[in-house]
Amino acid sequence: MRYSQCFIPTVKEVPAEAEIPSHQLMIRAGLMRKLSSGTYTYLPLGWKVLRKIMEIVRQEMNAAGAMEIMMPILQPMELWQRTGRDKDYGPTMFKLTDRKDSQTALAPTAEEVVTSLVAADVSSYKQLPVNLYQINTKFRDELRPRFGVLRSREFIMKDAYSFHADLASLEETYNKMYKAYCRIFTRCGLKFVAVEAESGPIGGSASHEFMVPCSAGEDTIVHTEDGTYAANIEKAEIDAPSTEIDLINVRSAVSPMEEVNTPNVGSIDAVCKFLKAAPQQMIKTLIYSVSFGGPEVPSRHPTASLAADEIRQQTIICLLRGDHELNENKAMHATGTAHIELAGEGVIQSLTGAAIGFAGPQGLSGKVLKILIDPSVAAMVSGITGANKTDYHVRNVVPGRDFPLSGDNVKVTDIRNAAAGDTHAGKALVFSKGIEVGHVFKLGTKYSAKLDANFLDDKGQSNACIMGCYGIGINRIMASAIEMSFDPNGIIWPISIAPFEVIITSVSPEDSLISDAAQKIYTQLQAQNIDVLFDDRPERAGVKFKDADLLGIPVRITLGKKSVAQGMVEVKLRTETENKMIAIDQAACEVAKMINDLKKVLG
Amino acid sequence: MRYSQCFIPTVKEVPAEAEIPSHQLMIRAGLMRKLSSGTYTYLPLGWKVLRKIMEIVRQEMNAAGAMEIMMPILQPMELWQRTGRDKDYGPTMFKLTDRKDSQTALAPTAEEVVTSLVAADVSSYKQLPVNLYQINTKFRDELRPRFGVLRSREFIMKDAYSFHADLASLEETYNKMYKAYCRIFTRCGLKFVAVEAESGPIGGSASHEFMVPCSAGEDTIVHTEDGTYAANIEKAEIDAPSTEIDLINVRSAVSPMEEVNTPNVGSIDAVCKFLKAAPQQMIKTLIYSVSFGGPEVPSRHPTASLAADEIRQQTIICLLRGDHELNENKAMHATGTAHIELAGEGVIQSLTGAAIGFAGPQGLSGKVLKILIDPSVAAMVSGITGANKTDYHVRNVVPGRDFPLSGDNVKVTDIRNAAAGDTHAGKALVFSKGIEVGHVFKLGTKYSAKLDANFLDDKGQSNACIMGCYGIGINRIMASAIEMSFDPNGIIWPISIAPFEVIITSVSPEDSLISDAAQKIYTQLQAQNIDVLFDDRPERAGVKFKDADLLGIPVRITLGKKSVAQGMVEVKLRTETENKMIAIDQAACEVAKMINDLKKVLG
Repeated sequence: MRYSQCFIPTVKEVPAEAEIPSHQLMIRAGLMRKLSSGTYTYLPLGWKVLRKIMEIVRQEMNAAGAMEIMMPILQPMELWQRTGRDKDYGPTMFKLTDRKDSQTALAPTAEEVVTSLVAADVSSYKQLPVNLYQINTKFRDELRPRFGVLRSREFIMKDAYSFHADLASLEETYNKMYKAYCRIFTRCGLKFVAVEAESGPIGGSASHEFMVPCSAGEDTIVHTEDGTYAANIEKAEIDAPSTEIDLINVRSAVSPMEEVNTPNVGSIDAVCKFLKAAPQQMIKTLIYSVSFGGPEVPSRHPTASLAADEIRQQTIICLLRGDHELNENKAMHATGTAHIELAGEGVIQSLTGAAIGFAGPQGLSGKVLKILIDPSVAAMVSGITGANKTDYHVRNVVPGRDFPLSGDNVKVTDIRNAAAGDTHAGKALVFSKGIEVGHVFKLGTKYSAKLDANFLDDKGQSNACIMGCYGIGINRIMASAIEMSFDPNGIIWPISIAPFEVIITSVSPEDSLISDAAQKIYTQLQAQNIDVLFDDRPERAGVKFKDADLLGIPVRITLGKKSVAQGMVEVKLRTETENKMIAIDQAACEVAKMINDLKKVLG
Repeated sequence: MRYSQCFIPTVKEVPAEAEIPSHQLMIRAGLMRKLSSGTYTYLPLGWKVLRKIMEIVRQEMNAAGAMEIMMPILQPMELWQRTGRDKDYGPTMFKLTDRKDSQTALAPTAEEVVTSLVAADVSSYKQLPVNLYQINTKFRDELRPRFGVLRSREFIMKDAYSFHADLASLEETYNKMYKAYCRIFTRCGLKFVAVEAESGPIGGSASHEFMVPCSAGEDTIVHTEDGTYAANIEKAEIDAPSTEIDLINVRSAVSPMEEVNTPNVGSIDAVCKFLKAAPQQMIKTLIYSVSFGGPEVPSRHPTASLAADEIRQQTIICLLRGDHELNENKAMHATGTAHIELAGEGVIQSLTGAAIGFAGPQGLSGKVLKILIDPSVAAMVSGITGANKTDYHVRNVVPGRDFPLSGDNVKVTDIRNAAAGDTHAGKALVFSKGIEVGHVFKLGTKYSAKLDANFLDDKGQSNACIMGCYGIGINRIMASAIEMSFDPNGIIWPISIAPFEVIITSVSPEDSLISDAAQKIYTQLQAQNIDVLFDDRPERAGVKFKDADLLGIPVRITLGKKSVAQGMVEVKLRTETENKMIAIDQAACEVAKMINDLKKVLG
């Protein structure tokens, strides 16, 4: 393609709207433009990159036995109501009412649609397994769209759904897809890790996330140094604390609880500062409302009060050490509910008799559904916590003495996120940020049972299909590749997804010796199916070099007056600083070889 | 691909929901399934056909110098308000309100978005022309979705937009795109005609539609037998009636108007029957409300009345012969407005003093904005029309005597659709039904002026970009190809867009001689990049033949016991009934040749 005929509006200035390098560079290199909050137009080069990524995804999906289909973006709300997920998605789902007053959702994902499709067209085990995928636009009304395409409201997702007659078949496909994902990300030039993950609102029994470690990532990856264990922070399993002291003995020496006045000092940090204590000495008492019948909780007014009986049925207390964070997923698992949220002021006041910030576990076990105690709290000698009295805390609170560590509604169990110092199977855990680019799930029959996707087995018995689902964020692959590899001059693309493989920079296009040589190399490269951009613009050499670096094209061929007069061109990799001189006649051939070598590295 | 591993749910019964052959066959051949009114999931084979069509479109667009981009589906309503087209689209546009209360439209088309993109990134004539296209999902909330993908609510459109510094440049690109469209439809195997067309809500100065003539089409194509003139019915220009009689003389002999009682007889048909007259003897008097400031008219209550002054400013009368249909576009052009609609009962009653169905032009010219008289009415000696009195008509109404044929607000002009018997430039017009598969428009500055898409010319002057736009209905190409070519057994695909080029039907797959030969041919065809479906299912031969015909795959290779024992296979074109015997060793090579020949026919 000739640069002069291409629409590549590069930008010198770092755009104010963009916080992270990939977002800045995607705008600066003329790959995309913002239309509205969280929506972007892909310009010719950006779209070319995405098309190359989609083609890799497509090849690997087909090779794994998945078949491409295309489902509508408009989805009847009725399907979502049947699985109850309309509530799970809540305001994140775009909804509209059509001219016939039908409620319609804009696809945030497609489990419901594909399951109803299979329900209608599959009836026998002989038709299974079926593995269907699409590469289509998805919509999520994010509360805070940000980081360019990393958290946008409209994005391209590859979503696959497999249907099976038995678990062994699911396992086989899950493994095939897992391997296909590894090939896809490798071929796209990404460094990635696969981590154990929570299945979240998708549901199911097992799942893995594919993460690209980089500082701009919104997810936290937890792993052992040796890489034998990796999980996302929501899933990471941590060892229970080991203690070498004789807790019973030491605790018996602790003085009785003592109330201290802590006026207007509610937060852990403030209390620590006021009492000159460390967060590790605090027992954080979190009060949560739970719901078993769907996410009714979020709509409850925060200041609403409840009768004692209702509180006993709908409230749990979570105890954590002051330096730890609650992991809501773990707390939900421990409670057996899919919906919890921090209780409102009204509930807290009714339960504790105090304002927010002054709760403690003492005397509350009979008044709530459950008390969940993190093992690190159970292992404390004593701690400081709220006094259930506004503006007061208590010291010398001894677990097992001042609040129970066992009982019908008391459970000591891991309910927190991994933190610095934690171990898994005895090995220290380290933390890094990452971008989630893919996610695979074993779903089981969550959707098939609700949407009647049944089949007759070889004995004539009707069973719900066993399902898996598999997602890839196409736009995120693009952004991750940039986050992984850029320098102050611009993007450094992996060869497989670069908008062009080669750029020919002709320094003085008006010089016929140069333009003839450039044209010749351009034609020769095209004949070898090399994807080449010919910068034929009447611009200064400096402008052309800057643009070539900004665009991040892996190989640059430069035709300057001096070298061309000697029958040579300069060839440079974007990753290197040194030019290599190559004879004009050999240039196309040599560059084709270089590109092949670059491709081989990506498998 | 092996049939046994493919998801191709064919259906024997003609689906009740489908009225036309393409819709029936797309469901029966397992190409698609309905999700909700006007939305469809494309199954693997249907999606494969669409992908082949998109690839042809893409190749020709790129060759014509257009660059592919991808614009969001979510479009800010604010952009539509700036061009005023939010009102033009009305309820046909899907709208939603996001969690931040922003009004958003689902792309029905993208003139606004692309123009605002160019407005931000193009500033000089040096950057022009620019021709951008996308292949993306579009949304229209059709009042009556029907005919499968021909009138659906979610569909795939290729939409291109070109921006120019002058008209000559627009002309050049328009011609390039016109030619590219001809190549696209030819390569897709369609028989088509390009016709002059109205530009409708898109606007602009010239446009052509690409129509596939077929009985299922919703559009009417008007053309001369020799093909020198073709237009859609909204655009077709017709010759004024020629009359050989001396109108003045003959009219002078007509008796005065005579009222006749026609109780409860309002419609043309009913009046004709009652008075034993032919529709050609009737003068149809249509009363329309017009609006100049946008489509305020549609929201007006039908029974609302208006003051005489308002009626004089907002009402027109159209006179047609009883056997003719009004062409609203022509009436709008003649009035100089973009919005007209039939007046409500209240207005008609105020104006005529009678109920609907009894209006006549007598005495009304001073009371309305305009009287538009079709030339065929002006050429009548006399006619029958309403008496402006409920349950009464008048006979012997003479144009020019009983209502004016000239005057400040009277215009004799073509305001009707072409009808049987009409001519264009003296040649008889014939009518046929067609499916619109493409549409090209010269837009001028309609959008660029409103959205500030300006450029500085070589003199430093700021001008609005001159635009063109160019659409193709991808799904309609698929349906048209089927409508054009099917038989009682199923689809007959053009080779270029067939889901597979060849099907290998192995009659007894359990016979190792057959399965070995089939496998060999399968592998050889794949090695030659032939797109082949290998029917390896353990089904009866009859089932396999039926499915092969239903799917419409152009070439079938059949391996039966007898022929294979003789070292031969049977090769048959879907379009023919006779088999050709070919040696097993030659089969792949011969079939590859046949496919090449089929492709050559499509250019």
